[in-house]
Amino acid sequence: MPTSHHTVHVPLGDRAYDILIGKRLLDEAGVILAERFARARIGIVTDENVARAQLPRLLASLRQSGFQPVEIVLSPGESTKSYAHLERTIEALLEARLERGDLVVALGGGVIGDLAGFAASVTRRGMKLVQIPTSLLAQVDSSVGGKTAINSPHGKNLIGAFHQPSLVLADQSTLDTLDERQFAAGYAEVVKYGLIDDEKFYFWLEEHREEIFAGGAARAEAIARSCAAKARFVVADETETGDRALLNLGHTFAHALEKLTGYSDRLLHGEAVSIGMVLAHRFSARLGHAPSQDTGRIENHLRQAGLPTRLTDVPGDIGDTDALLEAIGQDKKVRRGALTFILTRGIGRAFIEHDVDRDTVWQFLERMRTR
Amino acid sequence: MPTSHHTVHVPLGDRAYDILIGKRLLDEAGVILAERFARARIGIVTDENVARAQLPRLLASLRQSGFQPVEIVLSPGESTKSYAHLERTIEALLEARLERGDLVVALGGGVIGDLAGFAASVTRRGMKLVQIPTSLLAQVDSSVGGKTAINSPHGKNLIGAFHQPSLVLADQSTLDTLDERQFAAGYAEVVKYGLIDDEKFYFWLEEHREEIFAGGAARAEAIARSCAAKARFVVADETETGDRALLNLGHTFAHALEKLTGYSDRLLHGEAVSIGMVLAHRFSARLGHAPSQDTGRIENHLRQAGLPTRLTDVPGDIGDTDALLEAIGQDKKVRRGALTFILTRGIGRAFIEHDVDRDTVWQFLERMRTR
Ligand SMILES: NC(=O)c1ccc[n+]([C@@H]2O[C@H](COP(=O)([O-])OP(=O)(O)OC[C@H]3O[C@@H](n4cnc5c(N)ncnc54)[C@H](O)[C@@H]3O)[C@@H](O)[C@H]2O)c1
Ligand SMILES: NC(=O)c1ccc[n+]([C@@H]2O[C@H](COP(=O)([O-])OP(=O)(O)OC[C@H]3O[C@@H](n4cnc5c(N)ncnc54)[C@H](O)[C@@H]3O)[C@@H](O)[C@H]2O)c1
Repeated sequence: MPTSHHTVHVPLGDRAYDILIGKRLLDEAGVILAERFARARIGIVTDENVARAQLPRLLASLRQSGFQPVEIVLSPGESTKSYAHLERTIEALLEARLERGDLVVALGGGVIGDLAGFAASVTRRGMKLVQIPTSLLAQVDSSVGGKTAINSPHGKNLIGAFHQPSLVLADQSTLDTLDERQFAAGYAEVVKYGLIDDEKFYFWLEEHREEIFAGGAARAEAIARSCAAKARFVVADETETGDRALLNLGHTFAHALEKLTGYSDRLLHGEAVSIGMVLAHRFSARLGHAPSQDTGRIENHLRQAGLPTRLTDVPGDIGDTDALLEAIGQDKKVRRGALTFILTRGIGRAFIEHDVDRDTVWQFLERMRTR
Repeated sequence: MPTSHHTVHVPLGDRAYDILIGKRLLDEAGVILAERFARARIGIVTDENVARAQLPRLLASLRQSGFQPVEIVLSPGESTKSYAHLERTIEALLEARLERGDLVVALGGGVIGDLAGFAASVTRRGMKLVQIPTSLLAQVDSSVGGKTAINSPHGKNLIGAFHQPSLVLADQSTLDTLDERQFAAGYAEVVKYGLIDDEKFYFWLEEHREEIFAGGAARAEAIARSCAAKARFVVADETETGDRALLNLGHTFAHALEKLTGYSDRLLHGEAVSIGMVLAHRFSARLGHAPSQDTGRIENHLRQAGLPTRLTDVPGDIGDTDALLEAIGQDKKVRRGALTFILTRGIGRAFIEHDVDRDTVWQFLERMRTR
């Protein structure tokens, strides 16, 4: 069976790698890995949902090519990005006697990618990692770029490492078993790439939104363009000391909202990002940086995609404005007293603003809480 | 008060740093850190013994320079290099709201250096690290080179990261409160540098051993030459894919012995290395690589330094030869079925041998167990 896929190459010197995007990559994984990592042994890390929906395909393909993978199946959900699950994953990799040149394969959404990636980074001070993202969010965002993490009671992703994968296999067909709400959440990150610095892509998304949700050619194109965008930022700034921070458009708000909703199903990461991006645009307009009609346009687009866009869309109580600001203050992007935000001059024109005044943020959030 | 110290520069590109070696560096730490890391906040990680013996000097110096350091005091001993203490350390750093540009100061022996270094590496995906080693072993070995780790039930140092310090302050005067057994254990690593590739240094050590143990000029010189040797290997091969492995002379045996004695006071790391180096020399002689009189000479030198040199010197039961080989097999340096050892052609002529036959090792160990 001939293979057919897009390739996005990420040129990071001796850590360069390929992202393959296609429709049968899971079934071809055995052949692909055997070619690139002959003789390597494999530990697959996944969660129960993905194990049910997609693991059999991967196992069949790997066994066909002579691999005898070890399976590490964790419970699904954000709470899996914990010290306890990290320890369990590392110990299982060691128990299987995997060595430094062997492969950790992360099969799942961003939770599994982040956790397994972190485990791969620290087990024997660094094992090889292959990402096989199975959620839209993971395919367009978390599997690319080498950020790995677990959460702390003090905040999300506060513990982790930069560890680039050796290969990413993004198989769109795995998205067929993903539920619609999760798909929409991933779509928020796709929209983000347009909003940061590519207004053409953003307008194209507005036009093709329905087709992307239905599957088919536009979906593949959206994934490939998103991967390429992410890769571009990563290459420019691997460890996020500069422009890579633009990828955090909407994320300072989003992380705070996720914290206040307990990283739970009340609000998915992409949903929080959706609200966060609209807030970032509205805040930018309020500060006089951006035209205010952009905010409405974006909000409309995201709502049509089934995404929440306002603080009042968050189900249940999220505390008062002080609590919100406090949650923002523990974000990794905070430096000293002042706050750092990704603001914008309009669609496709995001920029980094250090030293945003806390009080101005408080005033803005206070208004947004009743909007 | 004018400062006076040796400096060893470690040229690692954008991760380059200095090792300062002197007699009053702990008292000058405030001034030195204020100069190099203005405005940074400081979290000190240390253990109870070192806190009692040396922390007051460091605190006084830092406060004098306007720092308000947070103190994280852990229990002493190898068992502190655990998941639980890692979590506790990270959470304390986050609780103190230290940020990415702030400093983790590791004040202690290799245990604290390895644990705090690992915590610094993963907290907020990488905080700055200053090593202030207070044991001889830490001053000549573990504080230099960027290896950090905790232990797994499956073996020593199996979980960790490469994270270079931004600065190392090796103050000899801290060794005055270190007990003699610990000092001797550190001395084993000093001897190691001679044995690897510097026979002149080795012969110099034989001559100056008593002076080094008594303190004074020869001690400072031994520390500085050891740091320089370690730095040389690190620069040549930062992530240990090649020649840096020579630093593991004696360590494959040593790690197995430490495992079988439960990483306890029964056998200190340096003591295990002492036995391991003699075994590596004897094994090399047995295989026809090295002159056998070297083994006796080295064994004599180490015994005069108060170090154990034979398997039978290990107090208590260490199990049978199979158990020993099994423990060797879980070492990180194992690749596939065959074993990798650092062997030698004589004093100052160590080399890496992959594919050492398991059975030959078994035969050798079986003999050594009754010797
Ligand atoms: N590392 C990065 O750069 C980065 C970037 C963005 C987000 N993230 C992280 O990613 C995480 C969110 O990722 P996510 O949205 O993929 O969450 P997730 O991994 O929890 O996946 C969402 C849900 O979908 C299920 N699922 C995934 N793929 C499926 C499939 N093909 N079929 C059926 N069910 C499937 C999962 O079991 C889970 O229940 C967050 O922890 C976030 O912090 C990381
Ligand atoms: N990272 C590396 O490259 C590397 C290299 C070699 C060894 N190591 C690690 O280093 C560890 C051993 O280091 P160690 O021998 O320093 O052990 P250690 O840190 O346990 O220190 C030995 C003992 O001396 C005490 N102590 C230290 N300094 C003191 C002082 N100035 N005054 C009084 N008491 C003091 C400590 O509390 C401890 O009880 C092992 O875990 C080993 O794996 C790491």
